[in-house]
Amino acid sequence: MVSRANNFMGEFEFIDWIRSQTPKSPGVFIGPGDDAAFLKMTPGKGCLITTDMLLEGSCFILKDAGPYRVGRKAMAVNLSDMAAMAGKPTSALVSVALPRKEGGKIAKDLFQGVKDLAEEFGVAIVGGDTNSWQGPLCISITLLGEETGKGPVPRSGAKPGDWILVTGVLGGSILGKHLDFRPRVHEAFEIHRLVDLHAMIDISDGLAADINHICEESHCGAVLRGEQVPISPEAKKLAESTDGKSALDHALSDGEDFELAFMVTPAEGLSLIETQPIPGIRLTHIGECVNEGLWLELKGVRSILKPSGYVHELD
Amino acid sequence: MVSRANNFMGEFEFIDWIRSQTPKSPGVFIGPGDDAAFLKMTPGKGCLITTDMLLEGSCFILKDAGPYRVGRKAMAVNLSDMAAMAGKPTSALVSVALPRKEGGKIAKDLFQGVKDLAEEFGVAIVGGDTNSWQGPLCISITLLGEETGKGPVPRSGAKPGDWILVTGVLGGSILGKHLDFRPRVHEAFEIHRLVDLHAMIDISDGLAADINHICEESHCGAVLRGEQVPISPEAKKLAESTDGKSALDHALSDGEDFELAFMVTPAEGLSLIETQPIPGIRLTHIGECVNEGLWLELKGVRSILKPSGYVHELD
Repeated sequence: MVSRANNFMGEFEFIDWIRSQTPKSPGVFIGPGDDAAFLKMTPGKGCLITTDMLLEGSCFILKDAGPYRVGRKAMAVNLSDMAAMAGKPTSALVSVALPRKEGGKIAKDLFQGVKDLAEEFGVAIVGGDTNSWQGPLCISITLLGEETGKGPVPRSGAKPGDWILVTGVLGGSILGKHLDFRPRVHEAFEIHRLVDLHAMIDISDGLAADINHICEESHCGAVLRGEQVPISPEAKKLAESTDGKSALDHALSDGEDFELAFMVTPAEGLSLIETQPIPGIRLTHIGECVNEGLWLELKGVRSILKPSGYVHELD
Repeated sequence: MVSRANNFMGEFEFIDWIRSQTPKSPGVFIGPGDDAAFLKMTPGKGCLITTDMLLEGSCFILKDAGPYRVGRKAMAVNLSDMAAMAGKPTSALVSVALPRKEGGKIAKDLFQGVKDLAEEFGVAIVGGDTNSWQGPLCISITLLGEETGKGPVPRSGAKPGDWILVTGVLGGSILGKHLDFRPRVHEAFEIHRLVDLHAMIDISDGLAADINHICEESHCGAVLRGEQVPISPEAKKLAESTDGKSALDHALSDGEDFELAFMVTPAEGLSLIETQPIPGIRLTHIGECVNEGLWLELKGVRSILKPSGYVHELD
């Protein structure tokens, strides 16, 4: 827990700072500074829990992103996982391994980024573990949440015949969205309230890869319709560069869009498309679940779609 | 979550291996492999949650300890935190940053160490995040648990006049116990059942430092009686070397004993000392809580005890 911090700026000063930044929250009976936090859930509600670790050099370049955006992203990716289950985020634990050089300054900015997004989504920081070492920056956040109305939405409930829908536009997140995206927590609540979600995932590995995850867990296949995939301006911009990939390839494979992909009956899918219930976020019908295989249909021709997003044409 | 692993051995093969190693547990409705795990707590029981991050070079030397013992320790330190709250551990998330070189082999041994101790204490592995990078090994575990009978034991409930007791013997853990200790989970249950625990902590930073944490949270002081502190054979062995510290200094300051220190009324303390209810683990009365200050009494003379354990003689 937080108290296990190693020396880097006066460890206990830093813990005091964290505690002073953490407002008392209902349901949190013991917060940071003890051996464990003690929380009470809403009676009858099951607990959702997810965790993500972000690593310097592998998941972010510290000098480009800056510690604030890294902290914000570490919270945001967890919120996105919670959104993918249609869960309500409640509390989080934040662990960091700080480089010894400038560890104190990095820590404050990093934690501020975590805290700002946490507050926006009503998440209490209830603990963590702060360390310093000779290695690069590492931040690991665990997010707790509660199920909402109809229970959590797994990856495993898609059925052949289901429509596949996505929120927003895809591809090119490397131009900025991968750091500054807004997790689709509230959008997930609203869709969950309106329809019976069979399966859902957040697009982190890339549309093709994430649809493939759903297919594996649901023991079905999927056809994506290339003309219907919503392509971001950033994906088009990247395609205009000389990397040899089309805008559609970017939308299928770039990843870190942190939009939601979900499966519903055709009737409920059509209703969502016609009513567009989420202000400012377009819902798009991009394909259907089938019995097996992962396919891309372009100009009426169906090809094997690799989970990496690379399109292999059948002869 | 687990699915967000980066490439290092065929990421999804590794996730499949983790899933195949994780037995289905009651209360776990969605386990590893989805965007979040979904758990149901025992109705009416509050949730305890703690996290610890272990870092290569700072918390362990990988080539000396080996990945199995590192994985075991990462689970054990969390179990020790749970014991310090008298909580019942239930489920855990395990995140790792693996060095690219030999990452696959390290991962399997590391996870086996985590898993063996988790099984011993009835803990289900319900998720995590597996990554590889250019940096050293980092493992971060979050442990969930439930309150037991009389609720969680905080650090903040000690009162002047309370007796201070510890489990086991202290000091010299660097000779092996810091890696191979057995967390005092069951011992905590039993003591919690028998008496009214006012405050409790696990001895990780060192006896003096951890008693000081209790004093700060409880707004009181403490006197430790030097002759009563139970000194381990390993502390005596270190004192015989030429490091200039006495065996008592080692017992006061070494840390990573992962024994429990706790505060009870004198009557209940006396009852525990006389009955010695824990088979194989001696309970020792080492001092009392007072109004303020942290003190060591040796041969009837009271000196200021620094939280670091260094004994500063009053003039």
